[in-house]
Amino acid sequence: MTTLPTVHRRGLMLVLSSPSGAGKTTIARQLLERDSAIAMSVSATTRSPRPGEVDGRDYHFISVERYHRMVADKEFLEHARVFDNFYGTPRGPVEAALAGGKDVLFDIDWQGTQQLAENARHDLVSVFVLPPSVAELERRLRGRAQDSAEVVAKRMAKAGDEMSHWREYDYIVVNNDVERSVASIIAILTAERLKRDRQVGMSDFVSALRGD
Amino acid sequence: MTTLPTVHRRGLMLVLSSPSGAGKTTIARQLLERDSAIAMSVSATTRSPRPGEVDGRDYHFISVERYHRMVADKEFLEHARVFDNFYGTPRGPVEAALAGGKDVLFDIDWQGTQQLAENARHDLVSVFVLPPSVAELERRLRGRAQDSAEVVAKRMAKAGDEMSHWREYDYIVVNNDVERSVASIIAILTAERLKRDRQVGMSDFVSALRGD
Repeated sequence: MTTLPTVHRRGLMLVLSSPSGAGKTTIARQLLERDSAIAMSVSATTRSPRPGEVDGRDYHFISVERYHRMVADKEFLEHARVFDNFYGTPRGPVEAALAGGKDVLFDIDWQGTQQLAENARHDLVSVFVLPPSVAELERRLRGRAQDSAEVVAKRMAKAGDEMSHWREYDYIVVNNDVERSVASIIAILTAERLKRDRQVGMSDFVSALRGD
Repeated sequence: MTTLPTVHRRGLMLVLSSPSGAGKTTIARQLLERDSAIAMSVSATTRSPRPGEVDGRDYHFISVERYHRMVADKEFLEHARVFDNFYGTPRGPVEAALAGGKDVLFDIDWQGTQQLAENARHDLVSVFVLPPSVAELERRLRGRAQDSAEVVAKRMAKAGDEMSHWREYDYIVVNNDVERSVASIIAILTAERLKRDRQVGMSDFVSALRGD
């Protein structure tokens, strides 16, 4: 009995983006619960930890100096300034996860996704989640807190801006039903894992099958 | 309540190729049984019908003259001569199915797949099915009939030739288990149906969500 070379897979980077109010956070949480091959990407940030936040789990808390050195050394897959704080995704842990056949989930906006695409297109699978209706989007944006009409209007404008980038994503999931959306994204993961280029060692496997 | 524009999907062409002995025929049959959105592609051929074969179901039986006219008029998505007979996939019925949101399954070899890719890359999703081991491949090729060692050796050589083209396919499924392979291909279909470019009307849907 011939023993064939082992095929293992390279992990992938799964990006979920959506306007807030589309249900993405719930979907992401369920994906992490259901599929142990997925890990959430942990960002680095220069802001101070909030009560209860754990370094290395919620964020990597780093100094402003370190942040700028990491940017200069191209150690971030994507990074951005948000008001007075800096955020970034360190390349090292993501690369280690992918090489080990783990998938990494990113909850980032269209700007972060564009940077990831520039730095790691080959490993990237991007999914844009849309709300099923205007009424549902408004209901979720309103339902969040007792906010003024002005704040809600600002959120709607931001959601509209985010949605204008849907064409930059590989897959579009309309979130009519959370259960179905999670199943859709699990199918996307299952399929992407079967892509030719993610199956490391396949060339040797086929050669052995052919008796080369 | 705003009624959003309807999104419907354009169908896709699913190609399954494999060396004979990899279990592709069983997989294809189960896919057709399980998913009513998939129809099998019906080829045209110049050979005579065999007992029990129904025109339009098993093949479109056509004359040699008609075949050559269809080739000249580019009415085939792919075509080939096999010994003294001609075979081809008429473009019209496939195009109608895709426009109607149906998927079309093709059981063709690497040469047919290359022609499909030239003529309809955008609609094509190609899956290469591999046997799990040399022993399994040999067992299946031998188990087919009481054939001579020479005939089996020829089949093995043909299987080896077919397998050398695995790199030309989008997805690779190693058929360790039929049930799992069918589930893998259903996941591939589910994912491909969610690809941005297959969702017709999404642009209007997003515009309406954004209140444009």
